[in-house]
Amino acid sequence: MANSKYEYTRHFETVDKVLPNTWMVVRIDGRGFHRFSQEHEFAKPNDRRAIDLMNRCAVEVMMDIKDITIGYGQSDEYSFVLPKSCNLYSRRASKISSTIVSLFAANYTMRWNEYFPTVKLKYPPCFDSRVVCYPSDQNLRDYLSWRQVDCHINNLYNTTFWAIVHSGKTETAAEEELRGTFSKDKHEILFSKHNINYNTIEEIYKKGSVIIRQKTKVTSISPNTGEPVERIKLVPTPLHVDIIGQPFWGEHPQLLK
Amino acid sequence: MANSKYEYTRHFETVDKVLPNTWMVVRIDGRGFHRFSQEHEFAKPNDRRAIDLMNRCAVEVMMDIKDITIGYGQSDEYSFVLPKSCNLYSRRASKISSTIVSLFAANYTMRWNEYFPTVKLKYPPCFDSRVVCYPSDQNLRDYLSWRQVDCHINNLYNTTFWAIVHSGKTETAAEEELRGTFSKDKHEILFSKHNINYNTIEEIYKKGSVIIRQKTKVTSISPNTGEPVERIKLVPTPLHVDIIGQPFWGEHPQLLK
Amino acid sequence: MANSKYEYTRHFETVDKVLPNTWMVVRIDGRGFHRFSQEHEFAKPNDRRAIDLMNRCAVEVMMDIKDITIGYGQSDEYSFVLPKSCNLYSRRASKISSTIVSLFAANYTMRWNEYFPTVKLKYPPCFDSRVVCYPSDQNLRDYLSWRQVDCHINNLYNTTFWAIVHSGKTETAAEEELRGTFSKDKHEILFSKHNINYNTIEEIYKKGSVIIRQKTKVTSISPNTGEPVERIKLVPTPLHVDIIGQPFWGEHPQLLK
Amino acid sequence: MANSKYEYTRHFETVDKVLPNTWMVVRIDGRGFHRFSQEHEFAKPNDRRAIDLMNRCAVEVMMDIKDITIGYGQSDEYSFVLPKSCNLYSRRASKISSTIVSLFAANYTMRWNEYFPTVKLKYPPCFDSRVVCYPSDQNLRDYLSWRQVDCHINNLYNTTFWAIVHSGKTETAAEEELRGTFSKDKHEILFSKHNINYNTIEEIYKKGSVIIRQKTKVTSISPNTGEPVERIKLVPTPLHVDIIGQPFWGEHPQLLK
Repeated sequence: MANSKYEYTRHFETVDKVLPNTWMVVRIDGRGFHRFSQEHEFAKPNDRRAIDLMNRCAVEVMMDIKDITIGYGQSDEYSFVLPKSCNLYSRRASKISSTIVSLFAANYTMRWNEYFPTVKLKYPPCFDSRVVCYPSDQNLRDYLSWRQVDCHINNLYNTTFWAIVHSGKTETAAEEELRGTFSKDKHEILFSKHNINYNTIEEIYKKGSVIIRQKTKVTSISPNTGEPVERIKLVPTPLHVDIIGQPFWGEHPQLLK
Repeated sequence: MANSKYEYTRHFETVDKVLPNTWMVVRIDGRGFHRFSQEHEFAKPNDRRAIDLMNRCAVEVMMDIKDITIGYGQSDEYSFVLPKSCNLYSRRASKISSTIVSLFAANYTMRWNEYFPTVKLKYPPCFDSRVVCYPSDQNLRDYLSWRQVDCHINNLYNTTFWAIVHSGKTETAAEEELRGTFSKDKHEILFSKHNINYNTIEEIYKKGSVIIRQKTKVTSISPNTGEPVERIKLVPTPLHVDIIGQPFWGEHPQLLK
Repeated sequence: MANSKYEYTRHFETVDKVLPNTWMVVRIDGRGFHRFSQEHEFAKPNDRRAIDLMNRCAVEVMMDIKDITIGYGQSDEYSFVLPKSCNLYSRRASKISSTIVSLFAANYTMRWNEYFPTVKLKYPPCFDSRVVCYPSDQNLRDYLSWRQVDCHINNLYNTTFWAIVHSGKTETAAEEELRGTFSKDKHEILFSKHNINYNTIEEIYKKGSVIIRQKTKVTSISPNTGEPVERIKLVPTPLHVDIIGQPFWGEHPQLLK
Repeated sequence: MANSKYEYTRHFETVDKVLPNTWMVVRIDGRGFHRFSQEHEFAKPNDRRAIDLMNRCAVEVMMDIKDITIGYGQSDEYSFVLPKSCNLYSRRASKISSTIVSLFAANYTMRWNEYFPTVKLKYPPCFDSRVVCYPSDQNLRDYLSWRQVDCHINNLYNTTFWAIVHSGKTETAAEEELRGTFSKDKHEILFSKHNINYNTIEEIYKKGSVIIRQKTKVTSISPNTGEPVERIKLVPTPLHVDIIGQPFWGEHPQLLK
């Protein structure tokens, strides 16, 4: 039984190669995470277990896909950066994007119990993904800055919103109180009414997480001698630092090669 | 802190809307499943648990994404058909494709223990996905026929290959014996040397699995009376039948509307 | 001097193949034709010489590009239909689209004097072009209907507008008088105030021009005998008929094969 | 008569916006120019009238489309460079590409008589066009170098080929003689057998033509005083110089901004 009669349908597949010599960013986004976080009783405004799990998944993705040089995550989203010279899967957008989102979602599911030992996973999480290209280093930095500013804006809002709610008001009342407020108004509400100094909140919530490959001392047992052996390896490591300003990029010049 | 300065990077995202009035097929494919099946000791040539798990994941995807009308799976791949009139996510290819592959991979991981209770999942599975469009009903049927013929060809080869190996030869010797053989040669090898009548092999291996929404009697407990209540619901149901010939399509005219 | 060092830049070209088995329509549109028609003193509302020149160019394009089966033109635009099975330039959109617009614009320039013997061409005309795909026969017919309805709406408006202007009012006054009017209002204005029965206006203005290949008796001189020889040839022929209703398609069944 | 019933077909048009912040190059190529040059008796290996006409058309295109900063032409092709920041037609590829090729072809036709006063234009010329993106300045320079090296290779071949043919051999014999030869072999054949020093051949043939906007003294008649007035204007000006090395780019730093 020859397959040639039907094989012509293969030619309906479109070629979706990404323009060479551009930065590729794969961004994954949680689908329906508002409900997911409620069903699984995430703490508000931030659930440290959920953030640690997201970061763990991103680290696992970067251990698998060596081409990724930077990860940046906040809330239920993660961005992965592939360098201009990357030729992974011949730069086929759908192949790259789907492989990464599939790995992320499966890791999230597999490692759930490790981070939520007391909460049963009711149904699997879901993420979508897309590829976006950035021609210049500045475009890439601006993209990452966009995401980190977004993290800041959302975290300040959510921190204030939940402080109001936890003080006994309804969610509707909290929304009402925050309508039209600026950044400094929220700082003021937090400080004067809820006794929270926003500046002392942990960096992981305010800055999100940037993952880069850091030189790390790794100890393994030699199969020959049975003795522990120390080596320096590049290990994907989450940091919670500003990536908008120049210092981060100055300290890690290899990121922009 | 305004986000407008960096938000321009949003405009680097490309619009990837699929041509209206065409069938959309999302096909997911296992990545590195040769190794995955070895590490998790899949039976050869077919592991029924693995196939049942694939089918379960496809059913779950179809329970979640109501727009899918047909699923077709074999080996480590699954195709999902969305009708011409479907407007899911405004027909954005990457959104549709990534959501489906993410759901599939997460379900695979979450339900692993149910199908492989005695095998520990060593690492999460990975799938890629793509969207392909087919303008005419015939193109769509030919695509599905292509996959089912592929199932048949691979299964006949694998069945014969593993019969030879299980009879004590090396994998290299089995490959050698099968080189250049036609379909009927393999039937003959199976029958005369290994006492296997290929025609009696289970349909699920020879035809793969097609999932359509079948009217099914569902019993639930009424929250009012506490009594069991029967209703007819459309439930995604795996079948193991020929989808190349006309009979299948004649019996299910709603599939081509 | 080897070229290989720079030839890598060739790989930045993107593949833009049109989905197989779909109708392809190339539509060209005049750029800046409002000014072009003023500078070259086109009669208003319609200049028969300009329409005849457009039709001639379309016929020439269809004589050159044999794959085109239908042309439809009105005002300063023309649509060319390529059938589903067409494999011209391997269905590369930019190649097909640019070749057709280039031929059209060059023909327009070259044949200008034939249609405007008393008007000097001050500067070359310019058209843009695009490819649009239509999966089904109905989609294609609806596209052509869209263009013919557009022709009708514009022609009724322009006929009434210029009747008012020619009666001595300013263009602003004419616009004002027509604001918010419906089709039957315009018929009424034309008839009662300007003594024009719209229904008696020539079909070429009301319907535009559809070009199909018609069997035509062609006489040529035999190179052997020097005698005239008659043959039947398929010649692109402009018609000015309704293409929205079924009759046209019933009379020319080959158009939808 | 409402158009809304058919207007849905408008949504089948695809968005083809070019990635922001990349160089755009529109390259047009003669279609069937081998035959066109024979029918119109172009001199071989180079017809100065034909090259001058090509350059004139490119200048006219650049006078019309102000966004173009560089043109480069050789043989029957021309490349037009639009800068990274260019937002012409919102960077729609087909709109930009078709407008340029249409202008070029119409100018070629309209100005034919000026350059070929003794040769009748038998049929209109035809060009195709495409858009290619280059992310970095180096990529753009390498693209232009690729075309100029191509010019050199072709011109050396053609010069030698036609020298052999003009010396009385057949075209087949000339091809045979040149098969497998390197650059320096062709120089040697030209010099020793045909008394041609390739280095003394005019630069326009060896380098092609690069058009940039040069400050030029322009004299016009003042409408007020009737006196001639001199102004400095940026005028697209063809040069025949090396664009591979650094000097050209150093002399014209505005080209890479």
